[in-house]
This record gives sequence, C-alpha cells and structure tokens, in this order.
Amino acid sequence: MSLSEDKRNARIPEALAALRNFSAGGLTDEQDFLLRDIARRSRLNAVLMTAVASSGHPGGSLSSMDMYVMLMAAANLTPENCDEMIRDRVVISHGHTSPGVYGALAEWGFIDRNEAIANFRRAGSAYQGHVERSGPGVDWGTGNLGQGLSAGVGFAIADRMCGRDSRVFVAMGDGEQPKGQNAEARRVAVKERLSGLTALIDYNHIQISGSVEDVMPVNLRALWEADGWEALESDGHDYKALYAALKRAIASPKPAVVFCHTLMGKGVSFMEGTHEYHGKVPSGDLLTRAIEELGGDTSEMDALRVLRKGELPRGRGAGRFIPSLNAGTPVVYTASDKKDNRGAFGAALGDVASKNSDMPGSTPIAVFDCDLASSVKTDIFLKKVPSRFVQCGIQEHCAATAAGAASVAGVVAVWADFGVFGADEAYNQQRLNDINHAQLKLVLTHVGLDVGEDGVTHQCIDYLGLLRNAFGWKVVVPADPNQTDRAARWMLSEPSNVCLAVGRSVLPVLLKDDGAPFFDEKYVYKYGEIDVIREGADAAILAMGHLAVSAVRAAEALSAKGIGVQVLHSSSPLGMDGGRLISLIGGKPLVTCEDHHADTGLGSIAALHIARAGVSVKMKNLGVTRYGESGASAEVIERMGFSPRGIAAAVESLL
Amino acid sequence: MSLSEDKRNARIPEALAALRNFSAGGLTDEQDFLLRDIARRSRLNAVLMTAVASSGHPGGSLSSMDMYVMLMAAANLTPENCDEMIRDRVVISHGHTSPGVYGALAEWGFIDRNEAIANFRRAGSAYQGHVERSGPGVDWGTGNLGQGLSAGVGFAIADRMCGRDSRVFVAMGDGEQPKGQNAEARRVAVKERLSGLTALIDYNHIQISGSVEDVMPVNLRALWEADGWEALESDGHDYKALYAALKRAIASPKPAVVFCHTLMGKGVSFMEGTHEYHGKVPSGDLLTRAIEELGGDTSEMDALRVLRKGELPRGRGAGRFIPSLNAGTPVVYTASDKKDNRGAFGAALGDVASKNSDMPGSTPIAVFDCDLASSVKTDIFLKKVPSRFVQCGIQEHCAATAAGAASVAGVVAVWADFGVFGADEAYNQQRLNDINHAQLKLVLTHVGLDVGEDGVTHQCIDYLGLLRNAFGWKVVVPADPNQTDRAARWMLSEPSNVCLAVGRSVLPVLLKDDGAPFFDEKYVYKYGEIDVIREGADAAILAMGHLAVSAVRAAEALSAKGIGVQVLHSSSPLGMDGGRLISLIGGKPLVTCEDHHADTGLGSIAALHIARAGVSVKMKNLGVTRYGESGASAEVIERMGFSPRGIAAAVESLL
Repeated sequence: MSLSEDKRNARIPEALAALRNFSAGGLTDEQDFLLRDIARRSRLNAVLMTAVASSGHPGGSLSSMDMYVMLMAAANLTPENCDEMIRDRVVISHGHTSPGVYGALAEWGFIDRNEAIANFRRAGSAYQGHVERSGPGVDWGTGNLGQGLSAGVGFAIADRMCGRDSRVFVAMGDGEQPKGQNAEARRVAVKERLSGLTALIDYNHIQISGSVEDVMPVNLRALWEADGWEALESDGHDYKALYAALKRAIASPKPAVVFCHTLMGKGVSFMEGTHEYHGKVPSGDLLTRAIEELGGDTSEMDALRVLRKGELPRGRGAGRFIPSLNAGTPVVYTASDKKDNRGAFGAALGDVASKNSDMPGSTPIAVFDCDLASSVKTDIFLKKVPSRFVQCGIQEHCAATAAGAASVAGVVAVWADFGVFGADEAYNQQRLNDINHAQLKLVLTHVGLDVGEDGVTHQCIDYLGLLRNAFGWKVVVPADPNQTDRAARWMLSEPSNVCLAVGRSVLPVLLKDDGAPFFDEKYVYKYGEIDVIREGADAAILAMGHLAVSAVRAAEALSAKGIGVQVLHSSSPLGMDGGRLISLIGGKPLVTCEDHHADTGLGSIAALHIARAGVSVKMKNLGVTRYGESGASAEVIERMGFSPRGIAAAVESLL
Repeated sequence: MSLSEDKRNARIPEALAALRNFSAGGLTDEQDFLLRDIARRSRLNAVLMTAVASSGHPGGSLSSMDMYVMLMAAANLTPENCDEMIRDRVVISHGHTSPGVYGALAEWGFIDRNEAIANFRRAGSAYQGHVERSGPGVDWGTGNLGQGLSAGVGFAIADRMCGRDSRVFVAMGDGEQPKGQNAEARRVAVKERLSGLTALIDYNHIQISGSVEDVMPVNLRALWEADGWEALESDGHDYKALYAALKRAIASPKPAVVFCHTLMGKGVSFMEGTHEYHGKVPSGDLLTRAIEELGGDTSEMDALRVLRKGELPRGRGAGRFIPSLNAGTPVVYTASDKKDNRGAFGAALGDVASKNSDMPGSTPIAVFDCDLASSVKTDIFLKKVPSRFVQCGIQEHCAATAAGAASVAGVVAVWADFGVFGADEAYNQQRLNDINHAQLKLVLTHVGLDVGEDGVTHQCIDYLGLLRNAFGWKVVVPADPNQTDRAARWMLSEPSNVCLAVGRSVLPVLLKDDGAPFFDEKYVYKYGEIDVIREGADAAILAMGHLAVSAVRAAEALSAKGIGVQVLHSSSPLGMDGGRLISLIGGKPLVTCEDHHADTGLGSIAALHIARAGVSVKMKNLGVTRYGESGASAEVIERMGFSPRGIAAAVESLL
C-alpha cells in the first residue's frame, strides 16, 4: 500500500471552522463526529510514529489526544498564524506526549503527516522525542516536567503587556502535578489576574511507577482552588463536554483549570488503563491490533520505514525577534562618582524604560522580581513603569521560566535577582530557556564574594561555570559602572539570552592613565572584546569584572618596582577570542583573576584556549578556591588572595 | 563596663528542666517568666551582634526568637547531646535569622555568648551570616530559602529508618512559604507518615518588599491542610500558648504545622511591625534605645568591639560519619555479558542491601526515588528492602535536600534519578548539600547523549560542569559494568557526597589485550586514579566513561595503520592528579573524549592541568559541542563526532 495522501495544509472540514475562537455555542453532532474522526486519525499517527521509531511515549499521547484535537480546533492558532505574535498560544507541559502533539498537528495541517511519522526520533530530524519550539504549532519546548504552566504564565503576561486579547492554553500531565514549580505558577497567574490562561490536566491517574495516588497523592482540586483558580471538570474524551468546559474556563474572570478525566492509552483496547505503554511501544501482533483498532493499515509501515531512510526533515528553527528600543542616553561616571554596578544597571534600565514606555512602536519592557527590587535596583523601573513590573514573590523557578517565555512573545523580559537565585536555583530553567532560544535578560547581582556578609549560601561563584554548559547564553561581567551602563543598554536590544553579572559593592570608576574614565563617552559595548587597560612588557593580568580595578592597582604597585604589567579585562569570557588573547599576551607570564570559582570561569576558559592552541604560557589562576566567608567583601576577598596585593604577589611569583 | 559573665554551658534554671522532651503538662507562671527573661536576653544578644557587625537581619530574628527559645527549652537537644545521632533535631529554614539563633543558642549554653556576639559576620569566624552546620545546635545550614522543610523531612525519614523515636522541628519564615519546594516537602512528609515532624512558621506578615499579602498572597492554612497536615495556630510570643500548641502538634498522628502569629522586630518598640529592619541594623540613638528596651547596657559595645579584633573563633567543622556496611561480593562481568552501567549499579546496590539489611550494626541504606525506579534500576533494591525505599514522586527539589539531610543523620542515603533531574534541576540543592558536608550518594543515569531518543531536554551533558563548581563533590564516571560494580560498592561507604554518573545503553565490557576483563577480580576502585588501558607511543587518548571502549576501538583501528595509541581513562576527572596525567602522556599529542559538554568536563580539566603546568601539548577535545539530537544513542553520538571513527580521525589530525 502506498502512503496516505494527507499532506501539510490538510483540508479541515468547513463544519469545524465555526469552532475557531470558541465562537460556536456548543458542538453539533456533526462537529463532534468530525472531531472524533480527526482524533482517530491523530491517534493512528501517534501509534505509527512510535512504531516506526520503536521508541516514544504512546500511552500518554493517546490519553491527551482529545485535549490536543479540541485545542487545535478551537484556539486561534493555525498553520497560517502560528509564526505571528497576535494569536492564541498552546503550551504542552508534558512534552513526552510529542507523538500525540505531532499526530494532531499533522491532521490540522501544521506539519506533513508522513514526514512526521517517518522521522519521529530520527537523529537530526525536526520531530524530536519531546516537543520543540522549532516545529510549527509548538510554542515552548518541554521535556523536563513542571515548567509548562510557568511558560503559559509568561505568555499571558506578555499578551497583557502588548495589549493582545489572546488566550493561552497549557496542557499538563497529572504525574507532573506535584512539582513545586506548578504551585508557584498558579500563584503568579492569580496575582497577575491572568484570566486568559487556561490549564488542562490529562487526569488519567497513571504515571511511570503506577497510579498517581500510589506514587504521590496530590489533593489536586483543593490545591488549585486554594491558589485561587476556577476549577472545572470534564470527560477528557467527550468533545461536547470538553468544548463546554473550555468555554466556561475562558469566560471565567479567574485563570481556570479543567481536570480532563481521561483513560491512559485511550483508543487502543489493550493499552487502555495501564502504565505499561507509558514509554513502551507495542510491536508484532499487538501493533497490528492497535493499527487496526484505529482504522489504519499495517502495510503502510513499510513505506514509512523507507521514507525514514530518505531526506532528513529539518526544523525551521526558532525565530528571534528584534526589539525596537531607544537605548537612551549613556551615562559617563567619573573618578569622583561612587557607584555600584547594580546601581548603574538600575539607572540605565530606568532611563531606557523612560524613553520607551510611552513611545508608540517601542517594545514593552517587562521586569520580573522575586522580592528583591530594592537590592537589585529594579525599584527605579518599578517607580517609573509600575504596570510592567511583575512581582513573583520568592518563587524563582516560576520567575525564570515565565520571564523566558515572555521574552519570545514580544516583550523585552528582564529578570533581576541575586546570583544564587537567578542562576544556581533556577539553572535547569535557564537551560530550558537556552534550548528554547529565549531572549531573557537575566541580571544577577551580588555575584562572587562581593556579597558582603551574607556569606557562603549567597556567594554566587559559579554563574559562568553554570551558563558555559549552555550553548547560547551570553554572559557579561562589567568592570565598572561605565561599562555596566553601556552593556545594559546594549543587552536590552540583543535578541538572545544575556546574563549581566554584577557585584554588590560601590566601585571606583576604571580610569585611563590620565585619570579620565576608561570607558568614556565614545565607548560602545562589544560582546567578546578584550579591553586593554594598561600596557606592560613583563607580565600580563587578565581580569574579570570588578577585579579590573584591583588588577590596575596591582600593576601600579609592580610598576613602582620596575615591573611592567599589561592589564587586560574580559567582560565576556564565553565570547572571548582565544587567538586574540594569545596574541595580546604574546608569551608573557599570565595571571588571571576573577571573583568566581577559580576552576570554572575566566581562568579555565583562558586555559582551554591556551592548551588548545598548543602554546605554553606560565600561568596562575586566582579566584575562589574554597567556600568564602561571611564578612566585609574586601576582607573576604583579601583572605581569598585576590586583593590587589594578592594579585601583585601572584605576578611576582611567575617572574 | 566589663562583659557579661555568661559563658558556654550557661546554667539553665532548674525550673525549666521539666520542660525538656515536652514532659510538663503546661507552663507554670514561673516557667513562663523564666523563658521570657531568657528571650529578652537572647534578643539583646541578637541586637548587639548585628550592631557590632553593622550587618545582619535583626527584624526577623526578634520575630522568631520566642519560637527558638521555646524549642531549645523543650526539644531533646542540648549542648551535651547535640553531636549525637539520637536526639531531636531543629532546622532553621530562614537562615538569615542567624542572630536570633545564635542569640538563643548562647543563652542555652551551646555557644559562648560574648564570642558569638563579637564575631558575628566576621570573616573566618564560626558565626556566619546565615546559620551553618559547623556550629553546635545547628542541624542544617540554610540561607537559600525554601529548603528547610525538605531537610526536616530527610531527618525524620532517617529517624524512622534508624528506629529512633525522635522529633524534628523546622522553623520557617512566612516570606519563603511560596517556594514550590515547600509544597513538595509537605507531600513527602504526609506520604511517609512523618508524625514526628513539626513545622513552625514565623507568621509576621512582613517580607523585604512589604507585606506578604502584597508581595505574593498565599492561602497558607488551606494549602497545608490540603496537603494533609494538621494545622494549628498560636500566638508566637506567648510561651504558654506556644507550648500547648507544640504539645498538640507532637501528639498528632499527622505531621503538624503551627502558625505562630508574631510581630516583626518584637521586643524593640521602633522595630516592631515594619520591614525596615529586615536587613538593616539600628545605629546611634536608635541602637541605644533598642539596647535599653531589652535591658542591656550600651557600654558593653566597646568591650565587644575590642573582642572582635581578637582571636578568630573557628567552627568545629561538620562531622562526618563512617557508615558500617558489608560491601558484598564484587561481580566480574565478562566479554559475553551484555550489561548497562545502570544495571550494574542496581545489582551492586541490591547485593549490598541484601548483605546488610538484616544485619545488626549495619547502617541502614535509604533509597530515594522520583518515579523512575525501573529506569534507574533501584527497583531491585525496592523488591529487597521496600521499607527503606522512599518514593518522592516527581518532586526533585525536595528529594535532593531530603536525601542530603538524611545522609548526615545515620543512614546511607542514595538518590538515583536521570542526570537532568538529579543535577541540573536540583543544582542549588546539591550545592547546599556540599556546603552542609552531606554524604549523599547521587546516582545519575541517562547522562550524556547516551539517553537515546528522549533528546535534548533529557541529555545531561553538564554534570561535571555543574558539580565542579562545588568543592566537596566527588564524581565517578565508570567505563564499564565492572568498574561500575566496584565504584558503587566503594561509594556506599564513602563519607562524602559522591555522584555516580552512568549512561543508558548496554555496554561491552572493557577488556585487556588478552580478552580478559580489564577491571578484573583483583581490581579495587580508587577515586582519582587514571586507568592505563592500552600503551602506545605515537599519541594518547584520554577518555571518560563509556567512551573508554570507543577509544580502544579507535586505537585498534589506528594500530592497523601502524599508529601506536596509548588509551587512558579517567573515571574521576575532578580528582585526577594533573602531574600524573602529564607524566603519562609524556608530550604525545592528546585527544580527550567525553560524552559531556566539550568545554566543561574532562577536556577542560585536562587543559587546566596542562596550562597550569606551563607545558605545551597538541590537544583536541572531543565532546558535545551543540545540543544533541533525538535518535538512537549510537547515531546521535556518531553525528556529534565522537564515535570510534571520529576519535581515530581526531588522533590522525594531530599527527
């Protein structure tokens, strides 16, 4: 048998068009019949693709399928508008149901049916094991459970800030309900009055290890209601009931959740009600039976397997959007100014917000906070543009994902927090932001030992060591308030994830030999650039962030002894050009210094460049070599050995 | 004025002794009076120490003080027994109230009053900004909010498994209540029937940014009750009421929470009811007023400031406990065995559990799971010792902390999970386990691209890149099932945090030239050792984990071309001796290969050793250089370039 003729842009029956935007009163028998038939074919697609791949999660896909078909019928999300900003969004939180999602997307014309079935979980294809943003109709890639609702919150916040009267639907599994991040997201949704947000829970009571009640009982309805949601129930396989429930949900002034009572493996008799097919695919006679029960033809398998050996269908990539922002007026701090980098960031953010908040055509800036605005200096923004300030409370996991999702939905999303909370606590969320090609502006304050007395738990000495594990994050560690000002303005318009990492203390302005600001009125921030701060022939210091000033002091002390020290600064070690570094140091002994773990940041990156180039350099890496102490920043740093005196001693030890 | 005469081992009035272990019926007026006086002095201590340090969090400390004094009076926790295993435990979740904790600990004789006051937040002293395990009376160091209840859950689980009839008390702030991890911990507590666990919430309605109701409203009582807790209320400053509430709490068959209604800044008139003194210290006339209101003498300040310049009081360190375990019978897998490393781990764990579970004197092994037992192979243990298997559901943050806490409380705690969940999702919890000198056995399965088809979100390519940022974590990446078997048995008795990282696939056994197992019956696992698998004079390959076998295959292919390749394997790059590595490769060109991010794991560690030694080596680092794809593991790895063919090509490119 040849392959089915279904292709991209499948013709959707005219009778279903009236459902779009939930504009029908209720489902007619004809519409119900048509949807059930689309669901049957979608289920067949899901079973076929897992069979061709011999891999995947068919049980949950069949369980969630009617939710997916219903949403694709009624949400304002079509193959034509799915790349636009103004439309409804659908988030799949339990991303392992990708066969269900692809199966339905194919029937609704988003993707090519045979291409999707044949290439599911094939290395290099667009049809990955968990849903990805690179496919049309998928708004947020997931796979790690418990993050989808937070993404939905972010989209709904972006909708409101952009004045879009759109809806956001989040499909979730029941097994992932215990994840604490869901509770955080529920509260932010209610506090932000996100009435356009609807969650649907595939409530089949089964997860990998058995029944959800045995694995981890959750008093679901009581919890959602206690957090302020409208809670509704529906048969998750009955389209008339589902449509009615969704209409009630979107009419509610509160965010609403629909508990969709479903059957694991729905539609294939022997897969129903068992956890056996969570991550296992039927084969042999059972596969034949499954295909036949879904009205398919097993002989299609051969053609699909041939197709799997053919050309690899690539993803379309996740689009970037370029914000439209007036970058405001750069500030030049002079020697007499005493400013902390976090303050310089806050002032720059406030300035850019002032210049844009009432400008038609400007991209809205949304600032997310976790109860630290006065410390991270977004309080300036809060005073200027309170309507675009999102207080998430002490709920960093939700904040990280919500801000990440908002950043791809038409706003410039800024989340400022202490380093340990924004990077360490929310690392996996930042990783998913990277995978999703988000454009978050993550501002980490109080990084390094420059936290002062809060001590070890608050000393974020690993932000580079963490974000280097991603592939798209840009990290900026400015030397002084001037570089912070320019980097902050640059960052806000940069269409990628950018982390700006700043310490707590008031810093001296980095100066040229003549006492003028080093980063002067002509300075333009360039990511990856190495700043040459002082020249010297005997040794080189490569510093990061606030240690640039300490390095200059060390160089001055050594100069008095007749030792000429070149001082280099990298504000962006992840983007640093290794060849340029090696050429600048030119064989001189090198001391790197950073207020960061000595093995995982600047020094380690420099070492990698040097070792890979096969050159030999006498090198010493100063940085944090044990957990820091609780005390005045300068004292803690002195004890760790990278005060100006410690840096100078390290240089001398190499000569 | 000279300093107060109070010293360590302060004499506690006889009349209070009857309260210990909650053995009194109710508080007498005399006991109430005595406790209020201790609280007054404790408050004075807290204010003085923040004043001497000009830093700290006095507001919350005064608010929580009566909770602390009550607990220290009534819990079975004394200066004499606080280093023993059998006793009650008190966890302070809102660790920034350290002045409150130290202030009370001093009055109860755990620490020296003047030493604590004088050296609070002094770099290098034992009295850090947030509570730390290195001080007597502190059972878990916190500072990052929302983790304390999970630690309490871990302690209570350890109590049960060790047959200890003890109680665990967790003091929490109200601002941290929204953290999702708290909800996770509540559910595990109820599922595990931890009736000995009591939480006390300092409910003063104030957090940094204002009232908790404005910052992030939480329907607290409804949520705790929905999760199955007994919820009680008490005036948090009335000892008679507090004692009665705690007695009701510990009598409850359910875990119980006491909402302690308190006043921020309680005891100092101008600090009461305002968030101004959350992280700010009164000075000048206000300080004088505070000290006087608490019955102190301002002239004491001078003597305390002198003391602060004196000898630095060091922490006692966090004790390690050495498990008592029979390591069972090592298994030698031979060439004909087809075994995955995760299976070899599961079998070894099962064997050790069998040999010890009924043995008097053996340390209990507790296994924590997040709905993945059959994938991570702890199902073997579950069948053998179901009573020591803790199913946490999909709640990784709680699992990480609970298992970490249990590991210091007399059990060998094993938490096995997919790499992305155990390391990436719970990174900050693992960091706090490091800071707390925990002894967790973290088994990460499905690491690297060897996840198979689950794709990018499930590919943990950063476990080394993450745990390198800590200072105490040991990471073991075994080459084959034999090394896994031996490493697993070693790990279970190792008194530190150890991470065992294994992939998903069935692996060939690593063989010697003669076809016998490389890790044979004489092999003993040594952390840090470099395994010399093949000798060769022309080039060296340094592999990690399952790529050892690929490296041997590459060497064999090159040998056929007349190129002699040395094959080295490091199962423990974080403990690898750089000098030994450099001496082994002896100037030969080096290819490193790892199923891990190419910039943050083995290759980067080797580069750091090489660069720091100032030697020059021609080097190429194979590893993961972009997010991997979804497909069969071998195919995904081939496309990433580190199949045997890719490794051989890299070697040739260096010659």
